[in-house]
Amino acid sequence: MLELYTAPGTCAMASHIVLAEIGEPYAIRRVDFQNGQQRSPEYLAVNPRGRVPALVTERGVLFESPAVLAYLAQRYPAAGLAPLDDPFAFAQAQAFNSYVASTLHVAHAHRMRGTRWVDDPDALKAMQAKVPQTVGEAFQMIEDHMLAGPWVLGERYSICDAYLFTVQRWMKGDSVDPARYPKIAAHTASMQQRPAVIRALAEETA
Amino acid sequence: MLELYTAPGTCAMASHIVLAEIGEPYAIRRVDFQNGQQRSPEYLAVNPRGRVPALVTERGVLFESPAVLAYLAQRYPAAGLAPLDDPFAFAQAQAFNSYVASTLHVAHAHRMRGTRWVDDPDALKAMQAKVPQTVGEAFQMIEDHMLAGPWVLGERYSICDAYLFTVQRWMKGDSVDPARYPKIAAHTASMQQRPAVIRALAEETA
Repeated sequence: MLELYTAPGTCAMASHIVLAEIGEPYAIRRVDFQNGQQRSPEYLAVNPRGRVPALVTERGVLFESPAVLAYLAQRYPAAGLAPLDDPFAFAQAQAFNSYVASTLHVAHAHRMRGTRWVDDPDALKAMQAKVPQTVGEAFQMIEDHMLAGPWVLGERYSICDAYLFTVQRWMKGDSVDPARYPKIAAHTASMQQRPAVIRALAEETA
Repeated sequence: MLELYTAPGTCAMASHIVLAEIGEPYAIRRVDFQNGQQRSPEYLAVNPRGRVPALVTERGVLFESPAVLAYLAQRYPAAGLAPLDDPFAFAQAQAFNSYVASTLHVAHAHRMRGTRWVDDPDALKAMQAKVPQTVGEAFQMIEDHMLAGPWVLGERYSICDAYLFTVQRWMKGDSVDPARYPKIAAHTASMQQRPAVIRALAEETA
């Protein structure tokens, strides 16, 4: 059975939703970020990067949301969660996920995890001050260019939708007004109706 | 014929090397970063994100190095540039590429493109001061945990090798001592022998 290491409110929710969409049994292992468990020797033995998600499979542990999401889609092709037989469409899905990971998530991380990139307290504050702008611009790029509608890839639901739903949860904490993004807001409302999303949200803190 | 938008010294070199490895005809379109051409209306019509790489295909434009690299490997399976028939091994390749994009490249970008995340000049300097540490730690993670050797995935050369070779070129500019990473140094030396790498480097500024 697949095991997913996760923590509430993190990007690992995307992998959690996809596991719930697939419907095969899985186990959730919660990492206590509040108490720094991600830096414990036990967790670093699972993921030396000290981050979530980490997906434990019978062949080893996988990291990085875009890789875990694509893996789940490929492992369970019957679930239809990525355009596996079309390299161009698959690359579009990968490009979306890579943009979320490398640009949107990184912009967001400058608010709460800024010490990754700077030590000076004043500089940290200056970085945090720009987060509403940088995160807002990333959502604007998605709204204008990357969300075909109703789902990210168009008519077909995919792993990208689980990832977008996961990161839009950060808007309010990042002082980004959801009302500026009507397509994303409609997407969020559709996601909230899906049984897999309802299940994953219930399991997040259960 | 595929067209790759690139700029000297950027991460787009990874896609360029992979095109050369495949050996089919391709065209290189150079974007003049020195004069801000990536923000010109003409280039933003190609890639609204104002970045490279951008790969122009007969079905549209693809972005984000991990997506472009996986696309090329899937489009030309005979080139054997990714473990396409093994979802776990493919996910390991994707995880490597995602880590390079989301962690290593992002750490590097805080030196020359720090205004993405902060406006204050003193904060920019504080960010730049930490780059040798953050980039160095990312290479250490690769050296210790992510480079099986002799190639990234082990005995099999892949798209990950083109990406690693591309980003190791940034070490000196980021004040990271290559001598600290003997496995990466050996990898670089092997890469420099490959005809595709020699060709891409020659075309980079030709």
